[in-house]
Amino acid sequence: MNEQHSVDGQRRQAVDGPVLIVGTGLIGTSVALSLRRAGVEVVLDDTNVSALQEAVYRGAGSALADQQPALVVVAVPPDAAAQILAETSQRFTDATITDTTSVKGHILDQAIVLGADPHRLVGGHPMAGREVSGPAAARADLLDDRLWIITPSGHEGEDHVARVRRLVDTCGATVTEMDAAEHDAAVALVSHAPQMLASTLASVLVDEPAERLAIAGQGMADTTRIAASNADLWVQILRANAGPVSGVLQQVIGRLQVAADTLAAGTSAAGTELDLAPVAAILEQGREGQSRLPGKHGTIGMRYAVVPVMVEDKPGELARLFVAAGDLDINLEDVRIEHVLGRPSGLVDLFVRADSQAALIEGLEQAGFDVRA
Amino acid sequence: MNEQHSVDGQRRQAVDGPVLIVGTGLIGTSVALSLRRAGVEVVLDDTNVSALQEAVYRGAGSALADQQPALVVVAVPPDAAAQILAETSQRFTDATITDTTSVKGHILDQAIVLGADPHRLVGGHPMAGREVSGPAAARADLLDDRLWIITPSGHEGEDHVARVRRLVDTCGATVTEMDAAEHDAAVALVSHAPQMLASTLASVLVDEPAERLAIAGQGMADTTRIAASNADLWVQILRANAGPVSGVLQQVIGRLQVAADTLAAGTSAAGTELDLAPVAAILEQGREGQSRLPGKHGTIGMRYAVVPVMVEDKPGELARLFVAAGDLDINLEDVRIEHVLGRPSGLVDLFVRADSQAALIEGLEQAGFDVRA
Repeated sequence: MNEQHSVDGQRRQAVDGPVLIVGTGLIGTSVALSLRRAGVEVVLDDTNVSALQEAVYRGAGSALADQQPALVVVAVPPDAAAQILAETSQRFTDATITDTTSVKGHILDQAIVLGADPHRLVGGHPMAGREVSGPAAARADLLDDRLWIITPSGHEGEDHVARVRRLVDTCGATVTEMDAAEHDAAVALVSHAPQMLASTLASVLVDEPAERLAIAGQGMADTTRIAASNADLWVQILRANAGPVSGVLQQVIGRLQVAADTLAAGTSAAGTELDLAPVAAILEQGREGQSRLPGKHGTIGMRYAVVPVMVEDKPGELARLFVAAGDLDINLEDVRIEHVLGRPSGLVDLFVRADSQAALIEGLEQAGFDVRA
Repeated sequence: MNEQHSVDGQRRQAVDGPVLIVGTGLIGTSVALSLRRAGVEVVLDDTNVSALQEAVYRGAGSALADQQPALVVVAVPPDAAAQILAETSQRFTDATITDTTSVKGHILDQAIVLGADPHRLVGGHPMAGREVSGPAAARADLLDDRLWIITPSGHEGEDHVARVRRLVDTCGATVTEMDAAEHDAAVALVSHAPQMLASTLASVLVDEPAERLAIAGQGMADTTRIAASNADLWVQILRANAGPVSGVLQQVIGRLQVAADTLAAGTSAAGTELDLAPVAAILEQGREGQSRLPGKHGTIGMRYAVVPVMVEDKPGELARLFVAAGDLDINLEDVRIEHVLGRPSGLVDLFVRADSQAALIEGLEQAGFDVRA
C-alpha cells in the first residue's frame, strides 16, 4: 500500500488497488492519473477503444485484463451509468462500486433495480470539469482541492464507504456527504436549471438579425457562456434529474412571468408612471441571491481582495506588473483585464488574499504603478 | 478648433466646444475627460453637487456658468432623461442636443412631447460601462474603440447629426446609426432581457439553504454575474424599454415552459425512456445562438487565439510567464486562470491575436514552459 502527503501535511493511506476505472473520458482519466500519481495500481476500461488507448498512452493505467479490482469507479455518461454500475457489481463480486455521475438518486436506484449490490454501492460526484472533454484533456490535478460529494444511503457496508472516502483523499479532493435527493435538488438549482436557462436565452438568438447580436457585450456573453456546452451530455443529465430541474424552472418561469406581465402592462399606460414594484423586487432579490453564492472564484466563503492597476496596453507592461508583484512575494490568485470592444483597456484587476492587499498596494505604488484602489 | 490623431492615423477635426455635459456620473465624466484629452472646452452640470465637484476636481471641465454650449450631452438616469433633454433644448436654443441613455425611442419621443426641438435632438448610446459607477470611476479612455450608436429620426438638421458624429469621433469611439426602435429591440434582446433573466435566476437563491449554494461553480457564477448590478438604475431602464423587453421575456418563457413541461412529464414515466427531443432542440439551438455572439472578449467578429500554459501555483511564476511573453514582443490581450474550489489551478490561458499564436507557443516552449496547446 502506498502513502501520500496530503494537503494538510498529514500522511494518509492511499486507497488500495487495483482500482478499475470504467470510462476513460475527462473525469475517468483524471481520476486515474491522480491515482497513478499516488502510486496506486489502475486498470482501465472503455467501449471506445481509441479513448482507452489515449488514456493508456497518457500513463493513466493499463487496459483491463483479468485483474480483480478492489474498487470500481464508473465514469460514463448518465444514460449508461446505471447499467454499467449493475454490470460491474455483478462481475466483481467483492469490489466496492462507485461512480462520478452528476445525478445520484435516479441513477443509483436504477442501478440497484438492474442488479447492483446495495451493500457495495456508494454514489459519488466530483465537482470538477473543464470546457474541453476526453482523455487528452485529463489532468492529474483536476480533482485537487475540489469538492467530491458522496451520497451513502445507509445500506452500504462501512468498509465500502471508507474505501470511497480514501479514493477521494487519494485524488486530493475534499469529501462531503449528502443525501442523494438533497444532492440532486442542489445541482438542479445551481447547475442544471442554470444550464437550461442559459441555453434557452441563447436559443432565442438563432433567428435574430446579426446587427442586433453585434452590439452584445460582456453581460450577454457571461449569461450564455455555458450554452456552448455539449448538448448530448446535457440531455442525459437533465433526463436523469428531470423532476428537480423542472421544479426550479417552474419557480423561475413564475417570476419571469410576473416581470413580463408587469412590463407589458406598462407599455399601454404612461411609461414613467408605471408601477414596477414587482420587477424591482426581483432585481433586489437577485442582488441578494447573487451575493450568497460562493466567492467569485469558486472559493467557499472566501472572496479575494481586488487591487486595480492601470497599465499601458503594450507588450511587456503586464510582465513588468507581474514581476513587481512577484518581487513582493505575493501570490496572485487571479487576474482580470477589463475589455472594451476591440481591445483590452489598461485596467488590470489583481486578486490576492485579503491579508496581502495592503502590502501589494504599497509595494506597487512604490514601484511606480498607477494603483486605483 | 482642435485636431486629434485618430486611431486609423488620419487627423480629424475635434468637435467644437464648449460642450456641456449634464450629469457627471461614470459616462458623463468619461465623455468629458475624453473631450478634454482632445483639447475641447467642457462645462459640467449636475444636481448632485458632490458628483459635480468630483468631476471638476478630476479635470473633466468647469462648472456651468453663463457659457453657451454648441453641444449638450445629457448623461442622466433614464427616468430623468426626457425632462432634461427638453429643458436644455429650451435653454440653449442654438445647441445640438444629444444623450447617452441606453433606451432611445420612448425617451426621445417624451423629450419632444416635453418641448425638445426635434431639429436639434440626436439620440445617442455609447456602449460602454463598468461595474463601478460615479465620476471617480470615470476614465478618459472608457469610450476608446467602443461602439456608440446614434439614432437620427430624419427630422434633425444635417449639421446637428454631423456634430454628434464628431463628438463620437473625438471620444475615440466608433459611430453606428440605427433606427431608434431597432436599437431598443436590439438592447432588449442582448442586454435588458438577459439582465432580467440573470436577476430572476439569482432571486431564487434567496430562500435556499446555504449547503445548496456552497456547491455552485463557475457556470452559476457567470450566468448570474450581472444580477449584482444596480437595481434602481435597471428599473428605470426596464421601464423605458418595457415593451421590447417584455416581448423577449415572453419568448424565453415560452421555451422554458416547453422544457419544464417535457421534464415534468418524464418524472412520472420511466426516466430513461423519456423523449426529451424538445429539450434537446433548445440545447442545440442554444449552442448555435451562443456561437453567433461577437468574439468572447467583446470584439466584433474577432476571437482571440488561446495558448494554455501550466504554471506552478507560487509567487513569481506568473511573472516569469509574462516576462517570457513580453520578451517575445507579443501583446497579451487577456489572461484567464482556471479556478477550482479553494485555489487557482496551475492552468493559465493566454489570449493573443491569432497571428501571434504560433510565435507565442514556440517562444514559450523554448523558454521551457509547459504549453498545453
